[in-house]
Parts: sequence; structure tokens; C-alpha cells
Amino acid sequence: MVHPDSVLAEIDQQFPQSVERVCELLRFPSVAMDPAHHGDCRRAAEWLVRDLKSMGFEAGLRSTTGQPLVVASYVPPGGGRAAPHILFYGHYDVQPADPLELWTSAPFEPEIRKGKGGQKAIFARGACDDKGQLMTFLEASRAWLKVHGRLPFRLTVMIEGDEEGDASHLDTFLKGNAADFPVDAAFICDTEMWDEKTPAINTRLRGCISDEVTVTGPRVDLHSGYYGGPAQNPIRVLSRILAAIHDARGRITIPGFYDGVKPLPPKLRKQWEALNFPAKQFLGDVGLSIPAGEQGYSALEQMWARPTAEVNGIFGGYRGPGRKTVLPAEATAKLSFRLVEGQDPRKIRKAFRKFVRDRLPPDCKARFQDGGGDSTGIAVSETTPWIAAARRALKDEFGREAVLVGGGFSIPVVESFKKHLKVDSVLVGFSQAEFGAHSPDERYDIESLRRGIRSWARIIAQFAEE
Amino acid sequence: MVHPDSVLAEIDQQFPQSVERVCELLRFPSVAMDPAHHGDCRRAAEWLVRDLKSMGFEAGLRSTTGQPLVVASYVPPGGGRAAPHILFYGHYDVQPADPLELWTSAPFEPEIRKGKGGQKAIFARGACDDKGQLMTFLEASRAWLKVHGRLPFRLTVMIEGDEEGDASHLDTFLKGNAADFPVDAAFICDTEMWDEKTPAINTRLRGCISDEVTVTGPRVDLHSGYYGGPAQNPIRVLSRILAAIHDARGRITIPGFYDGVKPLPPKLRKQWEALNFPAKQFLGDVGLSIPAGEQGYSALEQMWARPTAEVNGIFGGYRGPGRKTVLPAEATAKLSFRLVEGQDPRKIRKAFRKFVRDRLPPDCKARFQDGGGDSTGIAVSETTPWIAAARRALKDEFGREAVLVGGGFSIPVVESFKKHLKVDSVLVGFSQAEFGAHSPDERYDIESLRRGIRSWARIIAQFAEE
Repeated sequence: MVHPDSVLAEIDQQFPQSVERVCELLRFPSVAMDPAHHGDCRRAAEWLVRDLKSMGFEAGLRSTTGQPLVVASYVPPGGGRAAPHILFYGHYDVQPADPLELWTSAPFEPEIRKGKGGQKAIFARGACDDKGQLMTFLEASRAWLKVHGRLPFRLTVMIEGDEEGDASHLDTFLKGNAADFPVDAAFICDTEMWDEKTPAINTRLRGCISDEVTVTGPRVDLHSGYYGGPAQNPIRVLSRILAAIHDARGRITIPGFYDGVKPLPPKLRKQWEALNFPAKQFLGDVGLSIPAGEQGYSALEQMWARPTAEVNGIFGGYRGPGRKTVLPAEATAKLSFRLVEGQDPRKIRKAFRKFVRDRLPPDCKARFQDGGGDSTGIAVSETTPWIAAARRALKDEFGREAVLVGGGFSIPVVESFKKHLKVDSVLVGFSQAEFGAHSPDERYDIESLRRGIRSWARIIAQFAEE
Repeated sequence: MVHPDSVLAEIDQQFPQSVERVCELLRFPSVAMDPAHHGDCRRAAEWLVRDLKSMGFEAGLRSTTGQPLVVASYVPPGGGRAAPHILFYGHYDVQPADPLELWTSAPFEPEIRKGKGGQKAIFARGACDDKGQLMTFLEASRAWLKVHGRLPFRLTVMIEGDEEGDASHLDTFLKGNAADFPVDAAFICDTEMWDEKTPAINTRLRGCISDEVTVTGPRVDLHSGYYGGPAQNPIRVLSRILAAIHDARGRITIPGFYDGVKPLPPKLRKQWEALNFPAKQFLGDVGLSIPAGEQGYSALEQMWARPTAEVNGIFGGYRGPGRKTVLPAEATAKLSFRLVEGQDPRKIRKAFRKFVRDRLPPDCKARFQDGGGDSTGIAVSETTPWIAAARRALKDEFGREAVLVGGGFSIPVVESFKKHLKVDSVLVGFSQAEFGAHSPDERYDIESLRRGIRSWARIIAQFAEE
């Protein structure tokens, strides 16, 4: 490892220019969801290409089924072959800015002012999600190159324009062009710190499958005055089946559901326990008070490391005002299952469907509709060199261990990298929940930008040999 | 008892005129549900008033909140005081006739022709429901009066015009005018025979209550990626509660639900068993095959003599196309309970609500919405003098015992008579399922009309002293 001191000094010394460049990028209203802004998306992408080229990268736009994809590549002069090949990912598209009247300053005219907590921040749509964040890596690379003349790894920078909208565009592109990206690891800068003092690396994401089941009984809706009693009622049948999915302790009873689910490493559990997650406040914010999931697991573990079965919607029979004494011909439930690493989405869907069929009484049938968009749970080993490098670097910068957090949701790009490029992603980000991603007055604290750039410099240093 | 032979002879002798009068009444398109036909309703009612007056009854129209009510009264000359006071009920309003293109002859131009089975019938809307049926009693009274000069009881004839639409009009009228009708028993002619050879008296009707329950959990819909696990899911909670309402044998588990339910008299059960009800075919017609109600009871008993709990509708969460990984803030079910004699609708609703509340986990609440229209189950003792008289008369006419059948539904007028006039109803009718009440080509077999008139003459005879 090369000590990054001279690079950190360079970063701090030219930091006003870094801020200026971030603001330049923020001025493009690159709202990919709005066709009226597709020109702005292209202009933002072209700005990035120019910026990447100015660092000496080969850079250009690649066509996708959506917005243009910024791709830059770098091979260190001379000893490129042996160096690892790193992929860095960010996105230049942003959420729509409305409602505009809730913004203090115009969303696409970045303004630097003090936030409520007194700290200086850049206020603009995309400030933290993800333009400010993606620039942390670019600014670190720029400073490193200025000081050392070369990066210690091969690098591909990939900055997409469809993250907020349709993730399938990048997935389709990667599926068709995987051979162009023989990378060893991916770094993604689009996540949050645990809190303002504690950096975080997300090593766990839950996957998801969706399925719809319709239980059918009588050929037509029946009058409950005539048939009430002997007629089978699909709503009752469906309710019984849904009620059977969880036992009294919240554990899912579908045979084979937990196959492949590994226990949480004790070290990780200990780390999570030490976070003192305020479950009561977290739930209190949405009108709840008690973690209702699997007993024996903390709320964090329920969200980050345990699979679930949920009913997202249900309908059947009469749903209008007043009453109608009908026995319905069918009833439907929409379910989703959050999955963790080790669970096979196809096997889970199959097991669920068998579970339903096994519980159908005579005269009832079930039909199913795959909800699509399957994703698998992901858990990155904490001991990969990439994670290890990031942990050391973040500890050096922040003076405390980075928390290895989880996410209850899936991040499509992580899934796409895993599926098509066969690499794990290292999710390191410097945003915070309070920064208001997707909300009016979105911001990125100046200090987050600076610490982010410095962190990436320290991560780069981990790969540099003296 | 006076032997009715001379009256029966009179009935048969003048039968062509009876048919003609039925056809006259059928020519009024008295569709109360269609405001364009309210004039026809009034004309039908006025025709009935004239006809009743022609028999020597005091007759006129009473105003209701709906169509005019035909009311006629008769007191036998001289010895009126001691005679029982009988109420006869029918209705002159009919179902709409559409789809018109499915009728062989015009629905309001009654045609006498042979039906599919070769028997002669009057084809018209209202032929069996209820104009042909109500005329059986009027024709019998007319013949009796012609032969004997007086009826053996005080009589009120009540023929309403809102039976097919809004039953609350007659109920409101009876509530406000009960004192005008100090009757001892009501006879209603609006039901069916068991089969073409077997007369039937309906002595059991199920009541009904409706209730809606909404289970609420989180304050807003939640993202299952974040909250899936610790968040309470109201659809799951509601499903669990609905699933708990019945045990594995189909018995309802709500505490106190069966309070007051009497076992079926063994004689009646034996009579029902002897009917050899074709449950398989009855269910097969709607795509089912096995009675799914309480085990240990026949399909007939499940329909006629056992209370039920049914879910008529359910909804919650996402119900659009595709998937949405949402945890819903609430879920709603609409339920109805068919009740038998002895069950108190208010107690059942209270017990159901307690049953729900007792099963709510922390963080969930339930709110309820009374569906209205409560009715109680009714069982008329088979040993009242009115039922006994009808059974003897029907046996004499048809040469076989009348079956004491039940109905799974409620008949609002029976409920209104019970509630406001404090009398049981004797439900005797001569229609058959094949006659197509409410359907195109509705008919009333000529022979049903004749046997119906003769049956009423025999019932009247039961009250006459030599």
C-alpha cells in the first residue's frame, strides 16, 4: 500500500474545484422518466464523457434501450495485465423534482447554503442521489492521477441513465455486452452511511419473487341464501391457506422454504446488536410499535437477513358499498417473498404453489400468475479483498469501523453485475437518510463530499504497491 | 269442516273464466323497478280493487312510500267476532321482462300454449311470480262465496307492488299501520311445490345479518423491502381471523354462535331424508360436487336448518395488474351470517366483533360497518292450526302429504308480518322451479292454476263449520 497522504492533501487543496464540478453536473435536469428531459440526459452524459476524457480515460457513450450509458476505461501504463480490473458504477439520471413549490432554491440551480443542522451543503435534485456521490470517486481518481500519474488497477467507469426508472435497460445491455467487461469487482457509490459518524458497507441484499394465486370454486357467484352451507367458498379457502403460511412464531411453514439459508455469522450479529437500532422509533414512525416478524430475531435481522412471505394484495367477491350476500366464484391474493442468499427463487415459487395445491379442498382449483422480476438474495463475504480494502480505508478516514449493514430490498444493478459479469459489488456510500434523496430540498453535505473523495483515495491506496 | 265438493265443482265449471281473469291481470306491465311503468302498476292495482269489490269485499288502495298497496277486507255477515282473522298476501309487481328477444311470445300478451313437457300453460311475465299464484286464492274465495254466500273467517287481502324491488316500502307501511291489521295468521302464495306431484309448505326461513370488518395496521402502505419482516400485515391478520371462524369440521367457532339453535325435530329430518334431495346434481349445476358445509348434516339440512358464516367479499393492498411489493395499511372483509330460529342477530354481530377483536395482535385495530337489513331466522311449528289445516287440505287435493320444506334465504314480508303484526306466515305455493320466475318465457301451468284454486277452497273448508 502506498500512503495516500499526498493525494489527500491534493484533494483538500483543490476541493473548491471539486465542488464546482459537482455543481456543473447538477445543472442538467437529467430526469430520465420524463421524455422532455431526454436531451438533458444526453447532455449530462456528454459532460461526464468530457470529464472522464480530461483525466486521460478512454470514454464514450454506449447505446442502450434507454438513456445513453457512459463508459470509460483505463489501463495503467506498462503493468496493466497483472493489475485487478475494477468496475465503478454510478448513475446520472435523477428523480423528477416536483413538487417544485416545496424547494427552497431551484432544484437544478445548485445552491450552497447551511442546512438545518448548521452544516454547509449543496442543495439540488441529484445532489446525493447520485451525482454528488458518483463524483466522489471521479474526484479521487483525478487527484490520484495528478499526484501519482497512474492508478493501481485497470478501471471501467460505468455511469447509467436509467437507475430511477427502468432497471431493465442496463440489465439488457450487460446481458448483451458482458464480454466487454471482464472485471474482478464492482464498486457502487449510491448508498448511505449508518449515521453521520459511522461509515457503512452494504454486504447483504434481499431478493424478491412475486406470485399471484387465484382460488376458484363454483362456476359462478352464488346466492348465499340458496347455497350458503353446502357451497365451497374460495375466499374462505384462500384465507385458510394464507393463514397457514406462518406459524405462531412467525416462521414460514412452506416445506423447504429455509433450505440454503445460512445462519448469520456471529461476528456480524454482534456488530448489528452493537448498533442499538431504534426499532421502536423506526416502527413508531409508521404507526407500529412491536416487531411482528419471526420471533427470536431482532428487527434489523428480520429486515436484513431473514426471508419473508407477505400478502401484498387480496381481492374476491363483492367489494362495493353496503352488502351483497354472494358466495364468490374465486378469490385472488398477490404475494411476494423477500429472499436471502442461498434461496433459489424458482424452488421457492414451486414450493409455494405446491403448498397451496396441497391445501385445496375438493371442488377448488388454483391458478397462478408469475409476478416477474425475480431477484436472488445476495450476501457478500466480509473477507473478500475488496471488502477488506474498503473497510481499512473507511476506518482510516472516519476513525471508526465501517458497519457491515444489510438492505431489505434488492438493488437491480447488483443483481445484474452478479448475473452477467459474475462479480460481487462493494456498496460504499456517503449519503445519509436526512439528505432527502427523492424529496424536495435534496442535499449533499459539503463534508460528505470531501470525506467521500478522501475515502476513495484511501481505497485506491489499498491497491497501490510501493 | 264443510265438505268442499260443491265449491270444487263450481271451480272446475267456471275455470275458463278464472284463466281469463288471470290473463287480464297479466296484461299490465307492472314493473315497479322501472318508473316508466308506475302507471301500469297503479292500473294493475286498480284492476285488483275492482275484482275484489266484485266479490263483495271492501277494497281500496293504500298509499305507501312505493307503489300503491291493494287492501281488501271482509267480515262474514253476522258471526264475525268469533271467527279467525286471516291475512292473505300476494304481489302484483313483476320482474322486468328483458331480454325481450328470448321470449317466444310477448311477455305482457299472455299466451296459452303447450310447454316443453306437453302441458298447457299461460306464458307471460308474472304468470307464476306472482299474479297467477295470487289469483288462486281470489278465485277460490270467489267460488266459495258463490256457493256458500259467506267465508268462514274474517279476511284481509293485501297485495303489494314492491316485492321485486324494495321490500322496505311494505315494512314501513306495516310498521306505521299495524293496528289496522289485527290478524291471527298470514297465508302467502308465492312459493313452489317440492316437485310437480308433491305440494310443499315452507316452515323455515333463514335470517341474515351482514357485517364488514376492516383491520388496520401501519399508518400507511409500506415498502416490503424496508419493512418486510418487522411490520404487521393487516391482510395476514385478517386471513388468520377469517380462517379461524370455522373448525376442521365446518362448525363455526365464534363463542355463543349456536346459542338458541334447536336440533331439527326428528320427524322433520326423516321427512327431509325421504325427499332424496339430489345434492350432487344441485351442486353439479354450479361446478361443485361435495357439500362443503358442517359435517354431519345433509346438504338440505345445511341449507334449510343450519346457520352459516360466509365471507362475501375481501379486499386490501394492491389489486392492479402485475406486482407491487407493498405491505398494506388495511384489509377489509364483508361477511354475512345466515341465521336460524333462536339466534339473536344482535348477539351474533356482537359475538363476531368480539371474536375479531380477541384475535387482533398488538398494533392492529379493527373497525366495523353494520351491513344493515338484519333478519331473524324463522321456524313455524308444524302443529299450529293454520299449518295443520293447510296440510290436510293439500293432502286431500294432491293425494300425498305436503312436504314441510325450508328456505335458506329470508322472505322480507314474512319477517315484516312477524315483526309488526306478530303473526306467523303459512307459505303455500303452486309454482315449480321449471316455471322460470324472473326468466324469459315465464309460465304458469294451467293445471297448477286449477290445483291451486282447488287447494285454497279445501283450506277455506277447514275453517267452515257445518
